[in-house]
Amino acid sequence: MAAIPQHGAHPPEEQEETSAAYARTDRTWPARGRDRATYDREVVHAILDEGYVCHLGFVRDGAPVVLPTLYGRIGERLYVHGSTGSRPLRAAGRADDGMPVCLTVTHVDGLVLARSGFHHSINYRSVVVHGVARPVADEKERRTALDAIVEQVVPGRAADCRPADAKELAATAVLSLDLAEVSAKVRTGGPNDDPEDLDLPYWSGVVPVAPVYGAPLPSEDLRPGIPVPGYLADF
Amino acid sequence: MAAIPQHGAHPPEEQEETSAAYARTDRTWPARGRDRATYDREVVHAILDEGYVCHLGFVRDGAPVVLPTLYGRIGERLYVHGSTGSRPLRAAGRADDGMPVCLTVTHVDGLVLARSGFHHSINYRSVVVHGVARPVADEKERRTALDAIVEQVVPGRAADCRPADAKELAATAVLSLDLAEVSAKVRTGGPNDDPEDLDLPYWSGVVPVAPVYGAPLPSEDLRPGIPVPGYLADF
Repeated sequence: MAAIPQHGAHPPEEQEETSAAYARTDRTWPARGRDRATYDREVVHAILDEGYVCHLGFVRDGAPVVLPTLYGRIGERLYVHGSTGSRPLRAAGRADDGMPVCLTVTHVDGLVLARSGFHHSINYRSVVVHGVARPVADEKERRTALDAIVEQVVPGRAADCRPADAKELAATAVLSLDLAEVSAKVRTGGPNDDPEDLDLPYWSGVVPVAPVYGAPLPSEDLRPGIPVPGYLADF
Repeated sequence: MAAIPQHGAHPPEEQEETSAAYARTDRTWPARGRDRATYDREVVHAILDEGYVCHLGFVRDGAPVVLPTLYGRIGERLYVHGSTGSRPLRAAGRADDGMPVCLTVTHVDGLVLARSGFHHSINYRSVVVHGVARPVADEKERRTALDAIVEQVVPGRAADCRPADAKELAATAVLSLDLAEVSAKVRTGGPNDDPEDLDLPYWSGVVPVAPVYGAPLPSEDLRPGIPVPGYLADF
């Protein structure tokens, strides 16, 4: 199994904003599976950029809530959006100093079948972002954020649809979350069977998995003569 | 767009344990998107059974933490597992009355491209389980739970690998979470464009997406003569 190089070994005060790795903190330093953890900025960006659905966690009445939602990345900032009437966005809007969140993005790359039940696993790449989500008030940044969320799902699409009008903008809450306290975890390769299990009569190996995109299905009411856009050819 | 039928309209006291729907509670009744919410037990089970990776949320030092992990379902109970040294499992083990969690499972079925940026969306099926995760102490239930987690990933596999030995069992913490406060959300169909947008010159429709499993890759050290198991043919 390819080990992921360790980064982030320097304490925060020694790191520059432009360093190659995010500063490691107590809560991004895992108690277990440290050999799979990385703080490398490029690795983190690549994992985030391959996805568009995150699981956003926040605390409501002392209990955790985890909801799937879309996100967009611009540099070292993530954006999520939602109706101004939705609970997390109302809660964040009320909080003067923002809402503590944890935003997690996970890609599953394979099922890992070991000779022992114990060593069964999953190949995956995940990013966990801890921080404070803040409502974006500036209209220009709100528009940029909404475009970024559309672009995260389908690169090239934001310029090829009708932008939000004033009413839609007013109905949409946008939260920002800076990429500061961030870690990634990556597992690759085959099962880590114990040496004494290698002769057991069980198959072992990996079943690869990846999302596959089908041919675009036009809306039934699509105006005739509008071809499938070129940017969808990438899927 | 096919509307998902509403369930759970009865208050909890009118519902039986064996009813066709989970009782709706304040936190499973969404502030927005109610037409996509369902409490139907069969729908919830089907969404859970199609997956094996969940995002588990818990609260640490007042802040949310969301981590991807495997799960297994047996009837109305979910199980997650981890090293006894991992933080969430240590925390749950210390808590006498369990650890409040939110366990979310999401399947992405399509990218929904509307004429307006505002109506872009995702077709998805998700289940959100609120509750208290409790460490499983009983050895028989622990073994059953670990088998269920393997079976969730690859049905048929638990009986075709070496079961956990005493040392492995001691190193593995298992948490249970009852399916009691549960909701599902499902979005299907094409974009919900505003009528006045239908003549805009933008393509609209859905790009289907689904996980696809590749041919099983045997371990390099696999003993010769062990064929790919029949249960992997389903992938």
